[in-house]
Amino acid sequence: MNKAVVIFSGGQDSTTCLVQALTQFDEVHAITYDYGQRHRQEIEIAQTLAKKLGVKAHKVMDVTLLNELAVSSLTRDDIPVSHELGENGLPNSFVPGRNILFLTLAGIYAYQVGAKTLITGVCETDFSGYPDCRDEFVKSMNSSLALGMDYKLEIKTPLMWLNKAETWAMADHYQALELVRDESLTCYNGIVGSGCGDCPACVLRANGLQDYLDDKTKVMEDYLSKV
Amino acid sequence: MNKAVVIFSGGQDSTTCLVQALTQFDEVHAITYDYGQRHRQEIEIAQTLAKKLGVKAHKVMDVTLLNELAVSSLTRDDIPVSHELGENGLPNSFVPGRNILFLTLAGIYAYQVGAKTLITGVCETDFSGYPDCRDEFVKSMNSSLALGMDYKLEIKTPLMWLNKAETWAMADHYQALELVRDESLTCYNGIVGSGCGDCPACVLRANGLQDYLDDKTKVMEDYLSKV
Repeated sequence: MNKAVVIFSGGQDSTTCLVQALTQFDEVHAITYDYGQRHRQEIEIAQTLAKKLGVKAHKVMDVTLLNELAVSSLTRDDIPVSHELGENGLPNSFVPGRNILFLTLAGIYAYQVGAKTLITGVCETDFSGYPDCRDEFVKSMNSSLALGMDYKLEIKTPLMWLNKAETWAMADHYQALELVRDESLTCYNGIVGSGCGDCPACVLRANGLQDYLDDKTKVMEDYLSKV
Repeated sequence: MNKAVVIFSGGQDSTTCLVQALTQFDEVHAITYDYGQRHRQEIEIAQTLAKKLGVKAHKVMDVTLLNELAVSSLTRDDIPVSHELGENGLPNSFVPGRNILFLTLAGIYAYQVGAKTLITGVCETDFSGYPDCRDEFVKSMNSSLALGMDYKLEIKTPLMWLNKAETWAMADHYQALELVRDESLTCYNGIVGSGCGDCPACVLRANGLQDYLDDKTKVMEDYLSKV
């Protein structure tokens, strides 16, 4: 049996990946990380969507241990807690390597349920500045997980080279544009679907949707040419 | 300033690595993982040793989330809980990839405290059967961590090619044979120092020490030829 694990936040990107996976695999598992998000609602939305879409199992993992690794939590005398940016351009409450941890845990989960495919919606196109979302890193991590568990695991990143408009085309291609638009949560202010309309995530999402709707034929062609 | 992070359990191997690191780095941090060991005492011994040896900071991280990834904890109808061995030769309560997780968390910690070196006492010679302790895996994981955090981190494995007798020679070389012998904990039954004498860990440790004591000059030469 063809099994996959999808790293699933309930946002536009991972919901689109989950919808696609459900058409391609016999059994799909979703894993959602709870690291003390501003909105507990995010977890509930992921649970509702996963159930509605018909995953085999949905694992919600508490990864609040990440917060223990923020510089400001290390309880060391010589590093003052600060919200100003450090030399690396990031606040000292920033925890790097979050996605390394997420892939590691999802990889272990995949091994345990016998899935040979691990799917994540990370993307270089809307480049977030996180090095652990880059293609080069994901390929290296794929090798590390396969070696470290002696297990033929393949990490797939269906959105890696898509822009936001093309991600909407992908959702449409899988007959899920309305579902993603109305039931996924990207908004920093916790508003499902169309969102608050003001936060950066809402603006990016709305602009992508508008770009797709403005020229569906061309954007769909662009999407299909990349897959 | 030259900083290192040592993955430290309080056992023979990691205590020896920690002693060495303290002679080679200006600032040494220790990180210990608490995953619900049989003996809480293990954590306390690690804390006592780390303090005595003079580390800059000692981080004890709760990683009981690993237990959630045991097959028997996945609460899935189609995988019965069993202590019998599976097709992979391991019980289904076995969680693979533990060391992948430990290196990931220690790598993030190293980034946060500005350490460019991460030291772990894993070893291929006393081959444990865990693929995530092999040299090939550690090298791959080193690349993944460096790429994923965009950070020049080097993982060092001082014991990778040493046998147990040579690890005792290493402790002796750093004037810590008595400390490791009397104050570290390897015994499965939680007895510090010489241990219970019966469990596999005690037998391996005692045999290694005897081999070293039987021919100190030769074993020390062998150790020094490998470093």
